[in-house]
Amino acid sequence: MIRHIVSWKLNGADAAARAEQAATISATLAALPAVIPQILSLQVGTNVAYPENNWDVVLVADYESLEDLEAYQVHPDHVAATHVIRPLVELRSAVDFEA
Amino acid sequence: MIRHIVSWKLNGADAAARAEQAATISATLAALPAVIPQILSLQVGTNVAYPENNWDVVLVADYESLEDLEAYQVHPDHVAATHVIRPLVELRSAVDFEA
Repeated sequence: MIRHIVSWKLNGADAAARAEQAATISATLAALPAVIPQILSLQVGTNVAYPENNWDVVLVADYESLEDLEAYQVHPDHVAATHVIRPLVELRSAVDFEA
Repeated sequence: MIRHIVSWKLNGADAAARAEQAATISATLAALPAVIPQILSLQVGTNVAYPENNWDVVLVADYESLEDLEAYQVHPDHVAATHVIRPLVELRSAVDFEA
């Protein structure tokens, strides 16, 4: 199994703006499992600790294989989601690993 | 439950150096559950995809509460682990969320 973890630091000017952006990202990603069958599970979390150092939102999603992860990456509904998310992002990190 | 996710981009000069650093980080973190009882579970993953964009290593660890996460943060064995990891790191992201 491949676990796909993406973290985002958002570009909103204050905590309230970033909370609204985080809710948008969460709702956008939560809609994907219904339309992209390669997603085995998907969890989105909003930061609740150490706000002076931590980033804002994280995605944890599981796929059967790297091929399924790549099918997700290029799926039109995922590409559309990235177009919603990208304008809200200051920094992004991603790690994909065998779990 | 609190899920604690930390991602690192390592500062090794090439992929072989970063793989060695990732192995050091993985072994260092994998030793912590035996000595820090607040850790409910701990998973360390090394990146296997999109090396031109992805970061190198990620930690996924679970705690019962924010108090237990803070107890982990200040535990001497965790502090010692951060002293091993920090010199290897170019960039770090962390998100803690209610799971």
